[in-house]
Amino acid sequence: KLQAETQKAALDTHTWLLVLSAALLFFMQAGFAVLCAGCVRKKNVQNTMLKNLLDACGAALAWYTTGYAFAFGQPGSGETSFIGTGGFLYIGDVDAAYWFFQYAFSATAVTIVAGTLAERCQMTAYLLYSLFLTGFVYPMSARAMWSSHGFLSAKQPDPLGGIGAIDFAGSGVVHITGGMTALIAAKILGARKGRFYDSKGSPLSKPKHFPGHSIALQLMGTMMLWFGWYGFNPGSALLLGVENSGPIAALAAINTSISGASGAITAMFTELYLEERRTGGLSFNLTMAMNGLLSGLVAVTASCALIEPWAAGLIGMTAGWIYVAGSSLLIRWRIDDAVDAIPVHLFSGVWGMIATGLFTAPTRILTAFGSSDHVGWFYSLGRGEVDATLLGNQILAVLFLLAWPLGTITPFFLWLNYMKWLRSDTLEELVGLDMAYHVNAPTVLRDDDVDEKALAE
Amino acid sequence: KLQAETQKAALDTHTWLLVLSAALLFFMQAGFAVLCAGCVRKKNVQNTMLKNLLDACGAALAWYTTGYAFAFGQPGSGETSFIGTGGFLYIGDVDAAYWFFQYAFSATAVTIVAGTLAERCQMTAYLLYSLFLTGFVYPMSARAMWSSHGFLSAKQPDPLGGIGAIDFAGSGVVHITGGMTALIAAKILGARKGRFYDSKGSPLSKPKHFPGHSIALQLMGTMMLWFGWYGFNPGSALLLGVENSGPIAALAAINTSISGASGAITAMFTELYLEERRTGGLSFNLTMAMNGLLSGLVAVTASCALIEPWAAGLIGMTAGWIYVAGSSLLIRWRIDDAVDAIPVHLFSGVWGMIATGLFTAPTRILTAFGSSDHVGWFYSLGRGEVDATLLGNQILAVLFLLAWPLGTITPFFLWLNYMKWLRSDTLEELVGLDMAYHVNAPTVLRDDDVDEKALAE
Amino acid sequence: KLQAETQKAALDTHTWLLVLSAALLFFMQAGFAVLCAGCVRKKNVQNTMLKNLLDACGAALAWYTTGYAFAFGQPGSGETSFIGTGGFLYIGDVDAAYWFFQYAFSATAVTIVAGTLAERCQMTAYLLYSLFLTGFVYPMSARAMWSSHGFLSAKQPDPLGGIGAIDFAGSGVVHITGGMTALIAAKILGARKGRFYDSKGSPLSKPKHFPGHSIALQLMGTMMLWFGWYGFNPGSALLLGVENSGPIAALAAINTSISGASGAITAMFTELYLEERRTGGLSFNLTMAMNGLLSGLVAVTASCALIEPWAAGLIGMTAGWIYVAGSSLLIRWRIDDAVDAIPVHLFSGVWGMIATGLFTAPTRILTAFGSSDHVGWFYSLGRGEVDATLLGNQILAVLFLLAWPLGTITPFFLWLNYMKWLRSDTLEELVGLDMAYHVNAPTVLRDDDVDEKALAE
Repeated sequence: KLQAETQKAALDTHTWLLVLSAALLFFMQAGFAVLCAGCVRKKNVQNTMLKNLLDACGAALAWYTTGYAFAFGQPGSGETSFIGTGGFLYIGDVDAAYWFFQYAFSATAVTIVAGTLAERCQMTAYLLYSLFLTGFVYPMSARAMWSSHGFLSAKQPDPLGGIGAIDFAGSGVVHITGGMTALIAAKILGARKGRFYDSKGSPLSKPKHFPGHSIALQLMGTMMLWFGWYGFNPGSALLLGVENSGPIAALAAINTSISGASGAITAMFTELYLEERRTGGLSFNLTMAMNGLLSGLVAVTASCALIEPWAAGLIGMTAGWIYVAGSSLLIRWRIDDAVDAIPVHLFSGVWGMIATGLFTAPTRILTAFGSSDHVGWFYSLGRGEVDATLLGNQILAVLFLLAWPLGTITPFFLWLNYMKWLRSDTLEELVGLDMAYHVNAPTVLRDDDVDEKALAE
Repeated sequence: KLQAETQKAALDTHTWLLVLSAALLFFMQAGFAVLCAGCVRKKNVQNTMLKNLLDACGAALAWYTTGYAFAFGQPGSGETSFIGTGGFLYIGDVDAAYWFFQYAFSATAVTIVAGTLAERCQMTAYLLYSLFLTGFVYPMSARAMWSSHGFLSAKQPDPLGGIGAIDFAGSGVVHITGGMTALIAAKILGARKGRFYDSKGSPLSKPKHFPGHSIALQLMGTMMLWFGWYGFNPGSALLLGVENSGPIAALAAINTSISGASGAITAMFTELYLEERRTGGLSFNLTMAMNGLLSGLVAVTASCALIEPWAAGLIGMTAGWIYVAGSSLLIRWRIDDAVDAIPVHLFSGVWGMIATGLFTAPTRILTAFGSSDHVGWFYSLGRGEVDATLLGNQILAVLFLLAWPLGTITPFFLWLNYMKWLRSDTLEELVGLDMAYHVNAPTVLRDDDVDEKALAE
Repeated sequence: KLQAETQKAALDTHTWLLVLSAALLFFMQAGFAVLCAGCVRKKNVQNTMLKNLLDACGAALAWYTTGYAFAFGQPGSGETSFIGTGGFLYIGDVDAAYWFFQYAFSATAVTIVAGTLAERCQMTAYLLYSLFLTGFVYPMSARAMWSSHGFLSAKQPDPLGGIGAIDFAGSGVVHITGGMTALIAAKILGARKGRFYDSKGSPLSKPKHFPGHSIALQLMGTMMLWFGWYGFNPGSALLLGVENSGPIAALAAINTSISGASGAITAMFTELYLEERRTGGLSFNLTMAMNGLLSGLVAVTASCALIEPWAAGLIGMTAGWIYVAGSSLLIRWRIDDAVDAIPVHLFSGVWGMIATGLFTAPTRILTAFGSSDHVGWFYSLGRGEVDATLLGNQILAVLFLLAWPLGTITPFFLWLNYMKWLRSDTLEELVGLDMAYHVNAPTVLRDDDVDEKALAE
């Protein structure tokens, strides 16, 4: 009897920790909103922030309606199932804390896209997209990777290759899904007017830079995200089971810190070096530091509880380089990403999944998953084996996580585009989406407090 | 012995969770400050934020001096007592974590009023009001509803009608008290110059809108509040007892999310529809989305652990409508509320208390309060009974929570007004309270960094 | 067996609480960044915030490399050791949650200095300083006071005078170290151009005030710090041991609230009174309220779990006065502190350490440290003894905490100065560090969104 009581108390604590971690992680919504607001021009601030607010709302309703059920609902039978068929509208046997925690993840995935599409996307398109992503696309990725019925999941009774693919806290499920969606949407939506082409449609010799209206908001948002990451990564230790999650969470927090820090410093100094070679001047680039940090955080998310801190340092450093290269690659490809969410979330997310296949340490995976039969490829080489099972699974998972949004989000955005719901018209874009969608009449705009300079742009 | 140890460990964890939840909930102070700062004109930002800071300080000192004692101090004898008589100045047997958690609630109640009175209220009046509310008025409401000696409390040994009135996390105690105070104060204080009347005192055909100086701050503040609500609502599960609070908290978190999301979307699209009927143009109104969200959060606070998620959706939707209607009603009544705190906190708070009497689910109240003899009226009808005990108690509680501030806050503000401590004089209001109360001499105002445009307004 | 399980569960919860508290406390990084951003002129915002971001990154890498090892690594032998010699690069037996929690403290210490040096310090100097402080100077202070091998530590098997010196959550280790570093650095770096001397080098009759560009950011940052303090102070209860930390944490939270509130109100009204005497006008000074609050928070940090709330009120009140006096003293000494971090962290930190020697209550120290042989001097007098052991140890600790940075930071900054890496050149300072260090070419500065007024300053 006492044992039952003890276990009940442990379960209760575990439930509470899930709720608190989810709350921290939910705070990333505020972080993304503030970061995006800083990255856009003044004439689009309201629009961008409203999108950030509404996608959190849309995610709640879509997750409630179908998202949770598709992702984690019980299947009819069989060990593997691609889609859940129970738990719609919170009906049936649902674990409340798990529901809430996973809701916060889905809201993160959807909000990644807000920044990329900023300054030129219609409200209608964005609202429909939010519901489609959290109600259908994201849940399928989450099911495959994280449910006990997912075909790639490490939590399956009989996982792929005896280990499955590991995405501890979502470099793949959350960040690749969000980042890939951002890439597809940016490609279909096109660049902002005047970014890569002049008014006659000829390509510019040098792309025009649209600096965000507030570096202070950008940096504040970045630090809020870093804070929220301590809900994201350590919190995911709670999904492993009721016991012993504390030390795993602590290691996750450490690796999160080290990888983020490495990413920030690497990206900033790499850019400083490159810039010095180009221009002879020294410049400490804030955007590089901030996005390098976020890239490091994204990259370590898949493996944060499974690696040693030195590996976190290497993962972050590489993520910093990936960001620097990825950001300039996007410009060469003429893909317009107002907040560079694509290199941060997609490219570093892919790297994070693969890095898990390279650096997963035997002692750490034993603690977390109860087996060290398959470990990171570098450790496997060190053992004198050439066991690339985990690495192979990770690559397979990446391919799936890229292909699934590609196959679903692409037709969805093409349809939005065909319906003329996607892109704001040229005049709306020029006067700014705030004036186009969010004020009723010029009266408001003549009021004392409205900045006429912003209007004049 | 082992059992004693186990219980002690559970109690310790419980204490910690109270402290952490209180910290999250305290973060709402920052959220309110940022939201209010965004809602006022530039010339009043300092004044508004200082009021927000000082009311948290005043609340700490007043709660310490008398607030806690009046609210939760032990009575002489008898089961019901209107006022506590022990625990002043933290003397005697006080539960520290409970004290801290309840302090954070009282600070929330007091800060609700800051926004409503912004841009025209003297510092002295605001400081005195803060002490009066947290030191005396709020504690009486909290005692009646939440202490084990309160005449309406569900925690009484012999509660009213066998169940008492239920206000799980404070739609009534916190939000009605704060919102009713805001209404009384706004009525006595009067509207800002030029809002409803021209300089000759003739009513304007159309009230003048004073747009806040920063939508970015408003939205940031709103999202910070949403985050803090996850301390507010789930945290209140800890007040039910040491065991089993985890799943209750998780349900509270889910319902909080769904009701808030419903409120935001309902209010925004309702306004969009009404506006389209009036003007033919489409406009996504941020203020509606933000205040609709907050209304949904306020409304679900009383019942968040006692209802099913579908009911949370309905409660939030209704709260969205209540906000839209309430906001325009205030304008018709010529009551000037700089942040619309009255419809958000008072009207939605009343709705939240009544909704608890309608939607409380048998299984949920059994888990939380150990009895399902009296349930929400809709469930009671479903059982084929017409038991409106709970609904009746809820209405009684609403009446008490409206009447008590009406009877105490009204004379207090009338007295402040009589003493000429309440309203800033006209010139102060025109130049802005920042210049009137917070700078010493023009020297500062000539410094390079002061925005001369703000001064010129 | 059941007992082992119970203990394991308790340990796991304890580990989790450390991680969550550390996350809250890490949020202070965001608070400091926002506060500093508000305190500087527009032309230096980017630079200041980047320094705040990078010192958190630098702290992570330095703490990982040497900081943790020097502070808490195992010694060769003997009870007292000044420096740790194990745990470099997270190698060996390291407690992960403890590592993470202590990292967050070290990051706080380093970031205190950012504001003081704002608007005139080179990036290189700041980066090198960050590494030096968190990699070497701070760890020695932490070892002396907090490790079980420290010569002043209360956790030693055989502590100094039977009790050691007590710094519950870091008034000394964190705030004196940070504040003393700020003082030394400000002295060597010199004041901003035009602050105390005119362009010909003659002293100004009245120092020029450089108002920060955003009071809203200042106040927001201050409230974020207040929130983070609830991780800082209650969280430190976890360092006492696995059991019974909950009620200690709750008391810490209460005292934190009361002391902060007292400090804010005391400083603001004292300044109001002094100002009224000088000028005849009434002015509610926000800076006084904000920095008075922070001073109260700093001062109570050393003793927050060991004193009664009335003592917290007195400590906060005194801290408010210390801030008012200290701030004007700095001006008289012509030491230029852009955010007044020196009076807030150094002066109030010293007061906090001494106050611990005066107000530590017998029942509270018994609960926390298991012995009440030595208590605060006022209680000792009340017992009819004159036992000043604790007070003496506190004074000794203060002297050590002042002397150690003085001996190490001074030569380091002199060396930076000698290398010409410390101070920005005059032109850089005049155009602003943002333009000097963070933009590549005028092209960016001609873009639509860049505020030309800021440039023109």
